[in-house]
Amino acid sequence: MSSDAHERLTASVRRLIDATIRTEVDLAAIADAADTIDAATARLSNSLLPGSFGVQTTPDGRSIALGNVVIGGRNPIAPPLVVDHDADGAVHTDFVLGAAYEGPPGHVHGGICALILDHVLGATAHKPDQPAVTGTLTLRYVRGTRLGRRLRAQAQVDRIDGTKTFAVGSITDSDGVTVEAEGIFIHPRSTRP
Amino acid sequence: MSSDAHERLTASVRRLIDATIRTEVDLAAIADAADTIDAATARLSNSLLPGSFGVQTTPDGRSIALGNVVIGGRNPIAPPLVVDHDADGAVHTDFVLGAAYEGPPGHVHGGICALILDHVLGATAHKPDQPAVTGTLTLRYVRGTRLGRRLRAQAQVDRIDGTKTFAVGSITDSDGVTVEAEGIFIHPRSTRP
Repeated sequence: MSSDAHERLTASVRRLIDATIRTEVDLAAIADAADTIDAATARLSNSLLPGSFGVQTTPDGRSIALGNVVIGGRNPIAPPLVVDHDADGAVHTDFVLGAAYEGPPGHVHGGICALILDHVLGATAHKPDQPAVTGTLTLRYVRGTRLGRRLRAQAQVDRIDGTKTFAVGSITDSDGVTVEAEGIFIHPRSTRP
Repeated sequence: MSSDAHERLTASVRRLIDATIRTEVDLAAIADAADTIDAATARLSNSLLPGSFGVQTTPDGRSIALGNVVIGGRNPIAPPLVVDHDADGAVHTDFVLGAAYEGPPGHVHGGICALILDHVLGATAHKPDQPAVTGTLTLRYVRGTRLGRRLRAQAQVDRIDGTKTFAVGSITDSDGVTVEAEGIFIHPRSTRP
């Protein structure tokens, strides 16, 4: 399922992603790295899940989404965010994003800010085994979000109306808000397995 | 700058990301893969750009953003999208997303749909050497977007008012629209290098 070995592998692939973007070694060294990586991929592919990771249940009954692109401990694309749930129902997460998340030079891609805010606002609506899906999401970009700086995304519930949770949140750095968001998250009336 | 060797390396890392999520080989094989990858990363890191890739100029004068998280040919996180500009100013891109972009089981993360729509709507406003930044972006999720299906994202300009471009767009699969978007994209009045 997961393990320290899986987490170490995922961390290694994250460092490789960064080096792939930033490397300035010669073309022969790049070709050699590609050969090495293809060999590692072939060994990992000797046994593969037939599809995506999805949500699996641990031996002690917890649901885990290790392949999730935002929080998944086995997904090298995920920073991964660790979302903390506060006592009052608010959520927050602290993170730093590197070269792999670039849009405008030196800045986080606006769409990556949207990805993170979608996830964090949605987390205010999630209940165990009853995930919420996004209905609408609106983002206001106040100023650029810099790569390499300590960032916080936070969200809280504004109000709940039936199956709809209205959430608000933001991304901030040490100088204040960079992106604001509001969204409506919906619990499907019937959740099929 | 870039090359066939860089593109081949990036493609190799994309396959590795997928295998890292989906592998079911034993822990010893996973640890061995991590060692192999760390060695490749160390060789690539013998010479690194000091920061992110940013936007660089090719010998023939074109601006390229090879590190961009949506379109970057050297960024393994990027699918990468190839955005086609139609004669009437509209833009579109066709793509398939695999296990690495998962949110709800079997489905594209809603925030990845936001990332793609932010980029594609923004592309309607970009001019050579005068990129536009996102002001606001609103997303309406009509239904889930499936992993592994052929998808199209498209956008066009609704109207232009001074430095603001109002754009609309959507993601569709063979059954129709999954996510709709509208956004305002802004050309900063002074573009500093």
